[in-house]
Formats: sequence, structure tokens, C-alpha cells
Amino acid sequence: MIKPLILITNDDGISAPGIRTLIEITSDFAEVVVVAPDSPQSAKGHSITINDTLYINKISKENEAILEYTCSGTPVDAVKLAINEILKRKPDLCVSGINHGSNSSINVIYSGTMSAAVEGGIQGIPSIGFSLCDYNWNADFEPIKSFVKTIILEVLEKGLPENIVLNVNFPKLKEKDIKGIKVCRQAKAIWMEKFDKRKTPQGRDYYWLTGEFVNQDNGEDTDEWALANGYISLVPIQFDLTAHHAIQQLNNWNWNKISTKI
Amino acid sequence: MIKPLILITNDDGISAPGIRTLIEITSDFAEVVVVAPDSPQSAKGHSITINDTLYINKISKENEAILEYTCSGTPVDAVKLAINEILKRKPDLCVSGINHGSNSSINVIYSGTMSAAVEGGIQGIPSIGFSLCDYNWNADFEPIKSFVKTIILEVLEKGLPENIVLNVNFPKLKEKDIKGIKVCRQAKAIWMEKFDKRKTPQGRDYYWLTGEFVNQDNGEDTDEWALANGYISLVPIQFDLTAHHAIQQLNNWNWNKISTKI
Repeated sequence: MIKPLILITNDDGISAPGIRTLIEITSDFAEVVVVAPDSPQSAKGHSITINDTLYINKISKENEAILEYTCSGTPVDAVKLAINEILKRKPDLCVSGINHGSNSSINVIYSGTMSAAVEGGIQGIPSIGFSLCDYNWNADFEPIKSFVKTIILEVLEKGLPENIVLNVNFPKLKEKDIKGIKVCRQAKAIWMEKFDKRKTPQGRDYYWLTGEFVNQDNGEDTDEWALANGYISLVPIQFDLTAHHAIQQLNNWNWNKISTKI
Repeated sequence: MIKPLILITNDDGISAPGIRTLIEITSDFAEVVVVAPDSPQSAKGHSITINDTLYINKISKENEAILEYTCSGTPVDAVKLAINEILKRKPDLCVSGINHGSNSSINVIYSGTMSAAVEGGIQGIPSIGFSLCDYNWNADFEPIKSFVKTIILEVLEKGLPENIVLNVNFPKLKEKDIKGIKVCRQAKAIWMEKFDKRKTPQGRDYYWLTGEFVNQDNGEDTDEWALANGYISLVPIQFDLTAHHAIQQLNNWNWNKISTKI
């Protein structure tokens, strides 16, 4: 039997414990190819590199079963390079992560991890982004391993609904305290920015982007509620950004000063 | 009467003819503040700068009516810096563009122009991204000026539905040949990548990301159809990425091996 081919990527770089955990879990039952950015790419969103060159480096040795590559550029570049220049066939699954830190609610839109998964989805590959709500480089991934494996096996078996990508976030809990998986919607939340203004040694002002995460949504069907209450949140994400529900309302607007009626 | 305050940004940089056109149109009836990236930021998506410092430069002179700033970082950084560090009050409108090149269909997800507008929306500001389907730096924005003005005035008057941002694309046509505005959904389309593989003078392989845009959607309610048929496409965009329609289906999956029933 041919093993499923899994493409693994992330935004924290190839040596991050999170991606090593994904590799460990999947190499049991799948052919694994890793293509990850060669530098930290957190918060790079769906950025791609069009005004600069891209490089690929093969990291794994000749006799190693798992092929590993780093590439310059963003997580989305990594997925595009993997599919077009590295992989011999279309992968059966693309998994991104495990991110060191939450990608729940509005974080999904800034996240390199999730954008890599979304790019996999755009390319027609069932794709999942995994994140653990622990920003620590030495975060403990042990408690979530069995859940990650089950989710991956379930998606490999069933595929995913068309044009849907999964955003899976894990609470920072012991395995026995995790209550299970909850299918959720993205909570309405924002980052309240607070720029940290400093002066260079030469006296010029500069800024660090910092901020506070504010959840504005008390819904018990949200990812934030699930995570706060001991569940793993699983949000189906789409890349058709159309607000279909707003189309009719906008059609009633007074565009006719300039718009021919159709 | 207090003039409305409009924040203008883009991803092509402050000297691009597209943003100069927006400034010219809006400064007639609004107080205008421009905060734009100091380097080209096309295809930067919703990238933000968290691992590097950010700088702001005031460009306009003391006696000039329009305040202009450049900033290092991405278009989304520009919006965040504008709101938190530059503007004295929350703007009544955020407009991004006019982009030199299309941001229709799947391009919306890669676009720095659109991501800046989306960030405006996240921050609770009515926001519009404008793009002209002409990648030329010397593109002719004259034919679309009256349309841009009408759309801006309409949104200033009515606001926008909650959590909705407008993605407006203009066909490259003479004014008399533009048939009007059509409210659309995002067409299903992809970029078929084709990496241009080259060698450095030292003999190392590198790549340029190139590709071909492929529209996979013949729907006459799409932005691609509108643009191909002489209309201005106007797509309402949302930043709740949840695929709400997929939640029920995923709830029927076999998560119960690992998931407590709620």
C-alpha cells in the first residue's frame, strides 16, 4: 500500500519543537516532506515574495527517510515552492505548525502558519493548521500528540469539504484535562495596539508593535470560548472572502447615478 | 461643518500615481492624511512587523494642508501606525490604493492594498480598497476618477454594513466605455505558479515566483465576469473567515473517539 504523502510546513522555522512534533507524529504512517522557512515568519499573513529571489536548501541527508528542506521567503512561498519544485506528486495532506502560540479568532488573518494551510487549500490540498496556546519555544507538545494524530487520520480518511481549511487550536493543558474537540466559529476579537516608542542611539524615534488581545464575543460557539473552557477549537476556514449576506443590501444602494442597470 | 477625515494608504508607495489620484479626489471635500509604506509592498498580504522596528517619516511641509507620512513596514503596519500614532481622531473612512493592477478574485488574499483596507475594517473604520486592472506605473487613472469619488461619497454618507470592507476593481477602459458598477462575489480562481529557475553568478540555483492567473468560475455574478464585460466590480469582503456552512457537516464527523460530547 502506498503511504499518504504529507507536506509539513510552519512559520517558526524548521528547528522549532512544534514542527518536529508534527514530523514525529506523521512519519509513523505517512511519507513526509518538510519544506519550512529558513527564518522566523510569524505574522507574515498571506505574504508572497515577488520582488526578491527565492532559495531552497536540502537539509536532510541522502539516506534519511524524511526529506527536509528550508526555503527563503514566507510560509506561503514554502507551500508554493514545495508543490511546484520539490514534490513529485500532489500531497494528500498539507499540515502547518504546530505553531507556538494561538491562532484563534482574528489571529488567523495575521498568521503565517494558517496562511500556509490556506495556500494548501487554494491549491486543492486538504490542509490543516495546528497551534498550541503557548508562545514558549519549549512549550510541551506531549499532551496534544494523540489529538493531532486523530485529526490528521480523520482528514486523510474523509478529505475536507471543498475550499475549506481547518484551523485547530489547543489549550495549554495536561492531556487528561483536555475535554475534547469542539467545532467552532471564529470569535470576533481584535488586537488593541500599543506601539512601544523608543529612541535609537542616534536619537531617532522608532516603534515596536505590541498590543493586547481583546475578545469582543461571548458566544459559546466560538473558538475563544472553547479554548477558555478546556476544549480544542476546530474552525473551518474559507478563502472566498465574499460577504455574501451583504450583496443584496449593497445592491439597493444608489449606484445608479453612475451605474447602468443590468 | 467639519470635513470628514480620510486615511489614505496603499502598497505601491507614496509616490505612486494611484495614491496621488486618491489624494487629489478626496482633498476636495475631506481632511486627508496619507500614511503609506516607504517601499513597494505588493503581495504582502496581511503581514505585520513584529520582529523588527518601525519608523515613521513626515513628508509634507509645515504649511501643507495634506499631512503625508511614509512608514517602514507593511500596508497593515501603516494603518495600525496611522490610527495609533499619527491621527488625532478615528478617521471616517480608510481608502487604500488605487492599486496598479487587479485585486479581483483570489488576488484579494495576497494583496497589500486590500489587506490595508481589511485592517481598517477590523479597526471599525469604513474601508475601501481600489484597484485598476493596469499594472503599468503610468496607468491612466483619469477615466475612473468620477466613479471613485461617487463610491467614496456614497460610503461616507451611508457607512458600510458591520465588519464589511469593499474591494473595488476597475476595468482598463475609457470612461465612456465603463458600463457602471456591479456588486459581485469573488470569482473562484487560482494562480498556476511557474517558478523561473536561474543560477547565481556563483552557480547556485534560485527562483523567481511567476505564474498565470486562471479563472475557474464562469458565474455572471463574479468580479471576473464584471471586469471582462466592462463593469466596475464591487465585492463586499469579510474578515470572519469561518466557513459557517461547513460547521454542521464537521459536527457529524467521528471526533467522539477523542472528543467528549458537549
